Amino acid sequence: MNKEYKLAIVGATGLVGRTVLKVLEEEKLPISTYKLFASSKSAGTKIKFMGTDYIVNELTENSFDEHFDFAIFSAGGDTSKKFSPIASSKSCIVIDNSSAFRMDPSVPLVVPEVNSEKIKENKGIISNPNCSTIQAVVALKPLDDKYKIKRIVYSTYQAVSGAGKKGIDDLNNGLKGLSPTKFPYPIINNCLPHIDVFLDNGYTKEEEKMINETRKILGKPNLKVTATTVRVPVENSHSESINIEFENSFELDEVIETLKKSPGIIVQDDVMNNIYPLATNATGHNEVFVGRIRRDFSVENGINIWVVADNIRKGAAANAVQILEKLL
Amino acid sequence: MNKEYKLAIVGATGLVGRTVLKVLEEEKLPISTYKLFASSKSAGTKIKFMGTDYIVNELTENSFDEHFDFAIFSAGGDTSKKFSPIASSKSCIVIDNSSAFRMDPSVPLVVPEVNSEKIKENKGIISNPNCSTIQAVVALKPLDDKYKIKRIVYSTYQAVSGAGKKGIDDLNNGLKGLSPTKFPYPIINNCLPHIDVFLDNGYTKEEEKMINETRKILGKPNLKVTATTVRVPVENSHSESINIEFENSFELDEVIETLKKSPGIIVQDDVMNNIYPLATNATGHNEVFVGRIRRDFSVENGINIWVVADNIRKGAAANAVQILEKLL
Repeated sequence: MNKEYKLAIVGATGLVGRTVLKVLEEEKLPISTYKLFASSKSAGTKIKFMGTDYIVNELTENSFDEHFDFAIFSAGGDTSKKFSPIASSKSCIVIDNSSAFRMDPSVPLVVPEVNSEKIKENKGIISNPNCSTIQAVVALKPLDDKYKIKRIVYSTYQAVSGAGKKGIDDLNNGLKGLSPTKFPYPIINNCLPHIDVFLDNGYTKEEEKMINETRKILGKPNLKVTATTVRVPVENSHSESINIEFENSFELDEVIETLKKSPGIIVQDDVMNNIYPLATNATGHNEVFVGRIRRDFSVENGINIWVVADNIRKGAAANAVQILEKLL
Repeated sequence: MNKEYKLAIVGATGLVGRTVLKVLEEEKLPISTYKLFASSKSAGTKIKFMGTDYIVNELTENSFDEHFDFAIFSAGGDTSKKFSPIASSKSCIVIDNSSAFRMDPSVPLVVPEVNSEKIKENKGIISNPNCSTIQAVVALKPLDDKYKIKRIVYSTYQAVSGAGKKGIDDLNNGLKGLSPTKFPYPIINNCLPHIDVFLDNGYTKEEEKMINETRKILGKPNLKVTATTVRVPVENSHSESINIEFENSFELDEVIETLKKSPGIIVQDDVMNNIYPLATNATGHNEVFVGRIRRDFSVENGINIWVVADNIRKGAAANAVQILEKLL
């Protein structure tokens, strides 16, 4: 690890971008040079990072003329679609937080605890999965390895921070009686069964992402998965009710032990003492919290679990930095 | 309908009791005399009802020495266990909102749209089901009649009003930074996968209620059902993500038409125009709102639906008054 690397952080002023910076400060990677980029609107912003004031640069088609070893993109699909190929054409490996390339068969879709071996197959772009999928597959992978997952039913309880700063504003302004600007209806006192746009088959794009990305990351293209994704009036950290059917039989104790021994997971499951995962406890952590682990008596080999994680950290920023660490 | 009846309202000062009064005002039933009861703590409270000031009486063992034709109990399980048998022993038919007698095989558990024929089998007590179960079975019954339900996976998004006034206080006080007194953790910015007490098998009593009461009301004692019940920071109206597997095949259009034609249901399902059930829209209504009706591609004959209802009205008070109407 003698070489020191150059990293571009694209979308540095957004909610995920700022958390990328925070996680980078915590992780202390062998990177000698950082450069922060954003749209023309946010360029010029001063950000304190690693004890220094950084001025955010405008992202342009020439930004990658200067050589970077790596770039983390957190600026939305359109920016990724336009600028990631430019960066990767100049030997900069892009870790992309947008959905732009996730389902591209030539692009690895990586959660380090689950399929870090895919990183080396990259052709210049590595996709970071959707936040709600990342936390789910961290819990599902060790169980799939051991018991072979047959079917998954997801119901999510997703925080407003998943919709960026505007989502948080809708929650806070809603408390003051103001109308929403990001969500189609007030998020105060509502659970909105509507994340991302609706598709012709009645599912939302978020639901489709969970279904397709789960299959791709677990390497099971025909896995039976369905999903209902819901925005709830919670500021940060997604919760998920996951119903799982296995091909193999299991002992519940063994399921719990398997989860406890698996990377990136903290099991919080002592219900008699009211111990179970909670959004407010997950916020600020990079791990995935799993609890309410219990047999589903309605199928032969089923369980229900409750999975909570910081959607901005593990669901986006921390996962991207973990991919970067593996690349280094 | 010449006879005019006498009705006792027990637990008249609580959240459900007050809503019972509101629904009675709306329904204008042939009742000549109302008498309001509560615990010694609340006795003496003055309540405006039907344009008159009523003084709430203390509920005692002698309260039913005066003859009542009917009583609606909304004062919790202990009160029901003690006083319902006294009332029914004096030929007063009790409609009980508590869980005390729900699973008693000799007590009908009634949702009028679903199994009103059970009312006549009563031996003095009729149980009102759990709020989260009522709204679910209103949507499930017509589908079970037509396609035969094989399995149900429930994930709920339950409002704090389900925990009474103290639940609402926890939400409102939490916004001011105060600690919760009803819930074990702050409900602000959290989804608590914990409603009612935990059982030895890892389920909560609320989850067990949904499973057992669904079976009893649908008259399918071996129906495969599992549930995860979750308290969310919403003041009123429960939302539910319900995954259903049928024995028979179906056309989705026909499922939607069936729901539209069924009693007590309002279908709100036009996702391209952002039309789907929402808690804030359901509040104040006695109907069950159903939307996000779509095929579950992970099983042969499956659908996902999103079901929302006012848990204090249809989930308790209105359902009880509807049972009373059928009795009259």
